[in-house]
Amino acid sequence: MKGLPSVEKAILALSRFPGIGKKSAQRMIHYLLRGDGSEIGQLILALDTLRMRVRFCVHCHNLAEEEQCWVCLDPQRVSSLLCVLEEPADLMAIEKAGIFRGRYHVLGGRLNPLNGIGPGQLHLASLRDRLQKGGVEELVIATNPTVEGEATAHYVAQMSQPFVARVTRLAYGLPMGGELEYLDESTLFQAMEGRRQF
Amino acid sequence: MKGLPSVEKAILALSRFPGIGKKSAQRMIHYLLRGDGSEIGQLILALDTLRMRVRFCVHCHNLAEEEQCWVCLDPQRVSSLLCVLEEPADLMAIEKAGIFRGRYHVLGGRLNPLNGIGPGQLHLASLRDRLQKGGVEELVIATNPTVEGEATAHYVAQMSQPFVARVTRLAYGLPMGGELEYLDESTLFQAMEGRRQF
Repeated sequence: MKGLPSVEKAILALSRFPGIGKKSAQRMIHYLLRGDGSEIGQLILALDTLRMRVRFCVHCHNLAEEEQCWVCLDPQRVSSLLCVLEEPADLMAIEKAGIFRGRYHVLGGRLNPLNGIGPGQLHLASLRDRLQKGGVEELVIATNPTVEGEATAHYVAQMSQPFVARVTRLAYGLPMGGELEYLDESTLFQAMEGRRQF
Repeated sequence: MKGLPSVEKAILALSRFPGIGKKSAQRMIHYLLRGDGSEIGQLILALDTLRMRVRFCVHCHNLAEEEQCWVCLDPQRVSSLLCVLEEPADLMAIEKAGIFRGRYHVLGGRLNPLNGIGPGQLHLASLRDRLQKGGVEELVIATNPTVEGEATAHYVAQMSQPFVARVTRLAYGLPMGGELEYLDESTLFQAMEGRRQF
């Protein structure tokens, strides 16, 4: 924006977000600059608090405001069930669905050797430690259904098998509400391969 | 997000933006919290700089980093042509299109009596001052094509007519690239009403 380098920079900072294009970033900035400046102040405060407060759970690497996250602190959780995920966002999605009553381990990413993400960059050592201590009866691998997610799942499975009786992974298949017509071939392939008796 | 009030608050602050739902805000926060924390620091810095630097042009009420905005400071602009707009974002859109070589006056909103926005809440007094000084030969009204924008346009037109020879407004009609089939009735009506000899 001509003559407004600070606006340019803020638009650039916002448009680095996933799903936010230059247009949306512009609209956000104009929204922020409207009125008495209270909006921008509130946003800065919220982000600053976020930066100060949020850290990673020492146990499972989920987002936390204390040393441990709310899942690790919850005595009601079934400790014999452990779910391995890539990111805290994935954990939130499963928690929101309310479909899992065990505990979690967040890897902090997925294997991607081309981008320099090897096993050493993920929280795999701490996973092994947890498994070695015993008590986990089933390890549910819930990495993303992508090439890298799959590679990560295989790595985790192989690493875990000596310590855990049952290593499982989420089912692949048709997403609810989707239409066959619009699904990609590999999803259809997985759905066909994984078909079950009616 | 259970156990993470600071994340909840940041999501709330972000999802107040136009076009940003709770889902996008969540994705943005998770993106910010990834990695080494440099992303969130950069965003806070950019927003803080924005808050400190950006103000409104004393002359036309456009966004500026100096006392006057870059349009008012530009000696090449035709001073006899003045375009009245609702918001700085509208000015940016017209500038980006490169279709206007005159000067601007940003009202800072549109008349909306139900929300307490009367003529006193808009930059109308300073517009009148500018017009009274003389030198403006054409006033182009470019408020938004909405009920409130229309009401504002009529108000501005009436107020300006004593001082300006020519008061015009942007044409209404078919948007380029749109399809008749999907256009609303009032746009079609305006396009028909405003039809021109071929």
